[in-house]
Amino acid sequence: MHKPVILITNDDGIMAPGIRHLISFMIELGDIVVVAPDKPQSGMGHAVTISSPLRLKKISADGEYPEYSCSGTPVDCVKIAVNKVLHKKPDLIVSGINHGSNASINVIYSGTMSAAIEGAMESIPSIGFSLMDFSFEANFLAAKKYIKQIAANVLEKGLPQGCCLNVNIPAVVESELKGVKICRQARGNWEEVFDHRRDPRGVDYYWLSGEFKVHENSKDTDEWALQNNFISVVPVQFDFTAHNFIPELKNWRFNV
Amino acid sequence: MHKPVILITNDDGIMAPGIRHLISFMIELGDIVVVAPDKPQSGMGHAVTISSPLRLKKISADGEYPEYSCSGTPVDCVKIAVNKVLHKKPDLIVSGINHGSNASINVIYSGTMSAAIEGAMESIPSIGFSLMDFSFEANFLAAKKYIKQIAANVLEKGLPQGCCLNVNIPAVVESELKGVKICRQARGNWEEVFDHRRDPRGVDYYWLSGEFKVHENSKDTDEWALQNNFISVVPVQFDFTAHNFIPELKNWRFNV
Repeated sequence: MHKPVILITNDDGIMAPGIRHLISFMIELGDIVVVAPDKPQSGMGHAVTISSPLRLKKISADGEYPEYSCSGTPVDCVKIAVNKVLHKKPDLIVSGINHGSNASINVIYSGTMSAAIEGAMESIPSIGFSLMDFSFEANFLAAKKYIKQIAANVLEKGLPQGCCLNVNIPAVVESELKGVKICRQARGNWEEVFDHRRDPRGVDYYWLSGEFKVHENSKDTDEWALQNNFISVVPVQFDFTAHNFIPELKNWRFNV
Repeated sequence: MHKPVILITNDDGIMAPGIRHLISFMIELGDIVVVAPDKPQSGMGHAVTISSPLRLKKISADGEYPEYSCSGTPVDCVKIAVNKVLHKKPDLIVSGINHGSNASINVIYSGTMSAAIEGAMESIPSIGFSLMDFSFEANFLAAKKYIKQIAANVLEKGLPQGCCLNVNIPAVVESELKGVKICRQARGNWEEVFDHRRDPRGVDYYWLSGEFKVHENSKDTDEWALQNNFISVVPVQFDFTAHNFIPELKNWRFNV
C-alpha cells in the first residue's frame, strides 16, 4: 500500500522540541522527510534567501528517515526540499509545531505559516501547527490526537487550490481541550515597544518588542476559540487583493 | 496650511536610485521623512528583527528633511519610524520605488510591499511602488505624474481600514504609458531552479533562482495590465482567511 510522503519543517530550527514532537506524530501517518532551518527563523515572514547561497546538510544518522538542516528560511526549506531532496512534491507538508501562537495577524510574521503558505503556492496540501507556549518544556503531547486527525483528514481529502491550514493550540492539558473549531483570522495588531539602549561604545540601539492586541471578540475568530480552549483551524489563502474595494477605486481619478 | 507628513521607505536600501526618485517626487506633496534599510532587503517578505538589536542612524546632512538608515527589514523601518522617529503616525507611507516587479504573487515575497502592508496594519494609508526594471539606470521619471497623482489621491481620500495599494509600473517611456488600471492580483508562481555548486573546500551549496510563471491572462489582472503598458494598481489586504472554504471545512471530521 502506498504510504504518503510527508515533508516536515518549522521555523524554530531543526532541534526545537516542537518539530521533534511533530516528527514523532507524523511517522505514524507516512514516510517522512525533514528539511528544517539550522537555526531559529522566527518572525521571518515569507522571506527567501536570494543574496547568499544556501547550505543543505544531511544530519540523520540512523537511516530511519532522511533529515536535513538548511541554512535558509522556512520558505527556502520548502523550496529546496521539493527541488533538491524529494525531487517531487510530497503528499503533505506540515510545519511546526511552533513555540508560540500564530493566530490572528501573527500569520503574516510567522515563518511556520510561511512554509505552509509556500506549500499551498506549490499546490501541495500544507498545514502549520502552533502551540501557545514558548517554553522549551511545552506540552506538545496534549493535542497529539487532534494534530494527527487534522493531518489525516488533509491527506485523505486534500485542500482546495491555493489554500492551507493555520492550526493553533491552546496551552492546556488534554482533558481541558474542547476540540477543533473552524475559524477566521481575528483582527489584531502589535503595539510596538522599542527598548532603547546604549552599547559600550556609547552608540544607541533598539530591541523591537511589543504587545499583541486583539481588536474583536467574535465567536467565529481564532482568538475567541483559543481563549475558550478550542484548537483553532483557519483556512489560509494568499490572494491579497482587497476585492471589495476595487469598484470604489475604479472611480478615483488616477489618469491625469 | 497643514502639510501632510509622508514617510518614505523601501527594500533596495536607502541609497538605491528608486527611493532617491521617490523622495524627489514626494517632496512636492508634503513634509517627508525617510527611514530605509541600510542595505538591500529584497525578498525579505514580512520579516521582523526580533533576535538581534536594531540600529538607527541619522544620515541627512543638509537638514532639508530628516533621513535615517535602519539595520533592519522594511517592516522594522516602518515600526521604528513611527515609534522612534516620528513619534506619531504619518499621513502617508510610500515604499519604493522598487527595482523590479511586485505584481502577482510577488507581493508576498516583497519587502517593498511588506512595508506598505505594515503601514495598513497600523491604519496608515500606504502605497508600494515598483518599476519593472532591475537596472541601476532604470527610468523612474516616466511615471512621475502618475506616482504623484496616486499619492495625492490617497492623501486626499485615505484608504479603507486594512487596505493599501500595490502599484506596478511597466518599464516603458512616458509616451507609451497607457495610464492607471485597477486590477486584482494575477495567479502565478515561481518555478524554482537551484544552481548547485561546490565551494573550494568541496562542500555543496545552492543558489536559489527560478522563473516566474503567470497562470492566467484575464484582463482584470495586474499582469495583463503591465503586459499592455498600463500602470497596475491592486488594493491589498491582509486577512489571509480563505472565507469561502470555511463552510466545507466545518463538515470535516476533526474531533475524535
